[in-house]
Amino acid sequence: MKKIITISREFGSGGHSLGELVAKKLNIPFYDQELIERAVEKTGFSREFIQEAGEYASSTSKLLFNMTLSSAYSSVGLPSNYDKIYSAQNSIIKSIAEEGPCVIVGRCADYVLRDREDCLNVFVYADKEYRKKHVLERYGEDLKKSIEKRLEEKDKKRSLYYKHYTGMDWGDSRNYHFTVNTGVVGLERAANWIVELFKEE
Amino acid sequence: MKKIITISREFGSGGHSLGELVAKKLNIPFYDQELIERAVEKTGFSREFIQEAGEYASSTSKLLFNMTLSSAYSSVGLPSNYDKIYSAQNSIIKSIAEEGPCVIVGRCADYVLRDREDCLNVFVYADKEYRKKHVLERYGEDLKKSIEKRLEEKDKKRSLYYKHYTGMDWGDSRNYHFTVNTGVVGLERAANWIVELFKEE
Repeated sequence: MKKIITISREFGSGGHSLGELVAKKLNIPFYDQELIERAVEKTGFSREFIQEAGEYASSTSKLLFNMTLSSAYSSVGLPSNYDKIYSAQNSIIKSIAEEGPCVIVGRCADYVLRDREDCLNVFVYADKEYRKKHVLERYGEDLKKSIEKRLEEKDKKRSLYYKHYTGMDWGDSRNYHFTVNTGVVGLERAANWIVELFKEE
Repeated sequence: MKKIITISREFGSGGHSLGELVAKKLNIPFYDQELIERAVEKTGFSREFIQEAGEYASSTSKLLFNMTLSSAYSSVGLPSNYDKIYSAQNSIIKSIAEEGPCVIVGRCADYVLRDREDCLNVFVYADKEYRKKHVLERYGEDLKKSIEKRLEEKDKKRSLYYKHYTGMDWGDSRNYHFTVNTGVVGLERAANWIVELFKEE
């Protein structure tokens, strides 16, 4: 019986849209940006900083640098601001899952909720061409950075973030219950598959 | 339009059974052991040697040793027997795919057929408990080796084989179109999903 759906996703693969679609089909809450709002309330950090500390940082090297700092802090027993935010997000995710069925996108929710038996963990990805098209449609062009560069940086960052906090490889199928290439499977079909598993008793 | 189904699988995850089920539902040929028979005919090597050279070697270290030898051979321009078998299997897989729709299990078929647009590549895995049960039911106990050890060796070997011949990570979702944990999704449902994609025009 899988009642909590976690969706991890490559940037531009349609993971956010898939999550929304599933939540709509099942009429259950959907958490993505809302998680950040709750973390702002809980920690007092700014929205921008929390976005950066999550997986939205605009510079991988900066995040890497801060994570190294974070390890240095924790080696002397002091949590860094990054670890504080991660820890606040953990409690938020756990308490959201306690409230009942829902869809949660990103933030290592699959790992955070690993002790629950009722989670369905899905990883969503797509070919480069599909992702480029999707990113341009959704976020528009970035005049300072090529679309290839934006994808590459996000991949690197999310992979690093996941590895840092879970010790596992981001995108390795064995960390999820199923994974889909949305360009081949399609968002509508992937959503139906998730609904099918959710409805299984 | 996906007409050639390749299935890569963790030992004991039910990948062979899934392939058979899909082939039966679609009434198309199924290739697993049959690939070995064709390689025996093509190369003149014994069935046992080909099984070992494929991913069925009973000793990882032996395969690793031979692969190192194989690299040494190829560095002086001589293909080793392992590479000869891999190359023969490649031609067999390519010519089978030319014959029409089919299901092919194992042997890096996803990679061998990477230039075809009509392949659906699936990776199948499951939790350790599911796999142990499945292996014991299908192959029985091995008095000399614990079931944990058997799973561990096969995982290591298949991962090594895939990496050696494709340069990619075995089980990384992005090498496949979708991946399923058969313990959670179930063989019947996974087969229906594949059939759904096969029937898509």
